[in-house]
Amino acid sequence: MAQTNPTNTSMSPMGPFKITVYDQEHFQGRRMEFTAACHNIMECGMDNIRSFKVECGAWVGYEHSSFCGQQFVMERGEYPRWEAWSGSNAYHIERMISFRPIFSACHKESRIIAFERENFMGRQFEMCDDFSSLQAMGWCNNEVGSMQVQSGAWVCYQYPGYRGYQYILECDRHGGGYKHYREYGSHAQTFQIQSIRRIQQ
Amino acid sequence: MAQTNPTNTSMSPMGPFKITVYDQEHFQGRRMEFTAACHNIMECGMDNIRSFKVECGAWVGYEHSSFCGQQFVMERGEYPRWEAWSGSNAYHIERMISFRPIFSACHKESRIIAFERENFMGRQFEMCDDFSSLQAMGWCNNEVGSMQVQSGAWVCYQYPGYRGYQYILECDRHGGGYKHYREYGSHAQTFQIQSIRRIQQ
Repeated sequence: MAQTNPTNTSMSPMGPFKITVYDQEHFQGRRMEFTAACHNIMECGMDNIRSFKVECGAWVGYEHSSFCGQQFVMERGEYPRWEAWSGSNAYHIERMISFRPIFSACHKESRIIAFERENFMGRQFEMCDDFSSLQAMGWCNNEVGSMQVQSGAWVCYQYPGYRGYQYILECDRHGGGYKHYREYGSHAQTFQIQSIRRIQQ
Repeated sequence: MAQTNPTNTSMSPMGPFKITVYDQEHFQGRRMEFTAACHNIMECGMDNIRSFKVECGAWVGYEHSSFCGQQFVMERGEYPRWEAWSGSNAYHIERMISFRPIFSACHKESRIIAFERENFMGRQFEMCDDFSSLQAMGWCNNEVGSMQVQSGAWVCYQYPGYRGYQYILECDRHGGGYKHYREYGSHAQTFQIQSIRRIQQ
């Protein structure tokens, strides 16, 4: 029995990035490969993305063009239908129109500070691991007021167990600082965050 | 600024367990507290569970009575509606009829071996961390043929990023051994597993 060695893979330098998208479910229909950001899939002749395979790197997809609306973290693997990447969301729009690579994702070197209140105020806690329940970890309530990403890229979720709305936070965006829920993403409507994890390159 | 100290919480001895369930969404309607397993919520006078709060411990919920059907991992936090615990599943049944504590969950002491083929054959890889993409970690494909839980409790998912069907695997059930997808859960229909993580107590 050969033992796989994941260390080499996860420690490999950033990139290259590669994603193959399809305009029908289950990897059918028109097919396009990307190695860099796409700000509007409609300008490439597709009306929507209905399945995809991430072959290299981590990506973030968006509901609207120009990287707006609901966010979907997309790591290496196969996503045959909308439910495979959407998680469980408040509304089922079934649209992914733009996407881009996440350059700073690093599974082994990720660090973030959560603050109880906005503008980096109140109680704080520094994390370098995944927590499927912030409350089980000792956090005071079901909200996080602001966050400072010190290294790597993270995804925060509305509900425990990595469910609900996804918010992608990166050390190389906003200087890593997210001082209010409005900066978590254009779709964020509350401070509610109940689970948080590193993004895997 | 006070620094929260999660270590005490996550290292606390197993239990006690407490969950409060409601028969309407958003913590409305009839309300019941449980500190142990419930094999059929209908025998308690509720037709279904439509929201709940996990106050202590990790639990697993089931679509049907007597711990059968789709599984839902439930860690500490608030779940105001079905989408909050279901993840993204192949079918939206919106039923949770039975549930039980997960006694062996331990975020800091969890270990599992994944095998390429059924009956603990083929390539293998031992994990003690969460992996939102097994393929990014170096795993060969989008399937796991069998698994041996050495310590703690784990949840495996059909899709990357902890999405799709959930399969709860525990060191104190089946002797920790899950030799075929049929043992992952009564709802499992394929070997497809693309992400895996520890369950947090």
